[in-house]
Amino acid sequence: MQLVIGNKNYSSWSLRPWLLMKHAGLKFEEIRIPLNTATTKADLAEYSPTLKVPVLIDQGNTIWDSLAILEYISEKYMDHKGWPQDASTRAVGRSAAAEMHSGFPAIRNELPMNCKIDIKLPLSPAVREEVDRVEALWTELREEFASYGPWLLGEFSILDCMFAPMAIRFSGYQVDMNSICQSYIDYLLSDPYMEQWTHEGKKESEVILASEISYR
Amino acid sequence: MQLVIGNKNYSSWSLRPWLLMKHAGLKFEEIRIPLNTATTKADLAEYSPTLKVPVLIDQGNTIWDSLAILEYISEKYMDHKGWPQDASTRAVGRSAAAEMHSGFPAIRNELPMNCKIDIKLPLSPAVREEVDRVEALWTELREEFASYGPWLLGEFSILDCMFAPMAIRFSGYQVDMNSICQSYIDYLLSDPYMEQWTHEGKKESEVILASEISYR
Repeated sequence: MQLVIGNKNYSSWSLRPWLLMKHAGLKFEEIRIPLNTATTKADLAEYSPTLKVPVLIDQGNTIWDSLAILEYISEKYMDHKGWPQDASTRAVGRSAAAEMHSGFPAIRNELPMNCKIDIKLPLSPAVREEVDRVEALWTELREEFASYGPWLLGEFSILDCMFAPMAIRFSGYQVDMNSICQSYIDYLLSDPYMEQWTHEGKKESEVILASEISYR
Repeated sequence: MQLVIGNKNYSSWSLRPWLLMKHAGLKFEEIRIPLNTATTKADLAEYSPTLKVPVLIDQGNTIWDSLAILEYISEKYMDHKGWPQDASTRAVGRSAAAEMHSGFPAIRNELPMNCKIDIKLPLSPAVREEVDRVEALWTELREEFASYGPWLLGEFSILDCMFAPMAIRFSGYQVDMNSICQSYIDYLLSDPYMEQWTHEGKKESEVILASEISYR
């Protein structure tokens, strides 16, 4: 099983399946393709029909989107435990995961993931509006599912993987959050696998301007 | 069970769950909220935490994203038959569905869904590139799964629902496609439920400029 990823410092989409696969205890080979180099496109073309990362190669299957990889891993290697067993909670989780999957363009563009960043920036109105939505969503979920565990749906799930890059962004750009959300961010960032990812991201030497990050 | 949708003429995201629910033979109430009017936001706020459509309300559950609704309907009311039973085919289907869910921004912006449109436009390079990708993907899927049926994965699936608005766009804007893809578009558009949706979309009286369609 091979997971093709981009730079750990920059590739928010790569982090998502990587984190679930680590939590599931899977053994897999990481193929790291630094983005935005002279050979990136040619290197990606070997694995990815969309020239984007992440891509999972497993038993002859090529799975070329982060959310599709998460569903595949949950079904095939986690006995469906990537999502909560309760159908209503699972529906909420999938709604929030899909909202992240297609949404929050201002945050993505203006606050790109960067494990090395530690700086407070003024937020544009568009970013502010999206941050407010994430804060409202996380707060509601934590209030509803706190008794089941410390993660967004109580127990660790695909939803935490989907929002993990957001936690790195909010921490790195020092975005003020309410105490419920700040506690969740602190908890997520102290997860051993999250610490491993950000540690390895910080060690990477490549530098990409935010405006050049076009792959995911 | 209530499905909250936007204008049938314009709301590509609304069509997707509606089409699956019709194919599944479900009885549901349609709540149509015309987009971009003086009361749209207030009307949506009654149902949608993101102020976007579609939203499914079912047995106390609120599911606020098209892909999440499709997964929910498949699990709860179709015995998981929204996706093929074969795990590898399902993984391909979910990859392609997710690619549609977060991708093709140029097509979405420059060729907005409009059931009434029948006009040939010059395609920008960005649209051309995305159209080429859709054409390559559909061709590959049809060639692989043709022996199982006439849909993208052989049998009708969530993936056809995800790409149904694309067929309306390619037809309405007279985008040239290869014969495999054109046959698929013709087949999809002659589906009785697709005919019902586009017929009802054409009858709608509201007019929205493409630049004003900000909801989904």
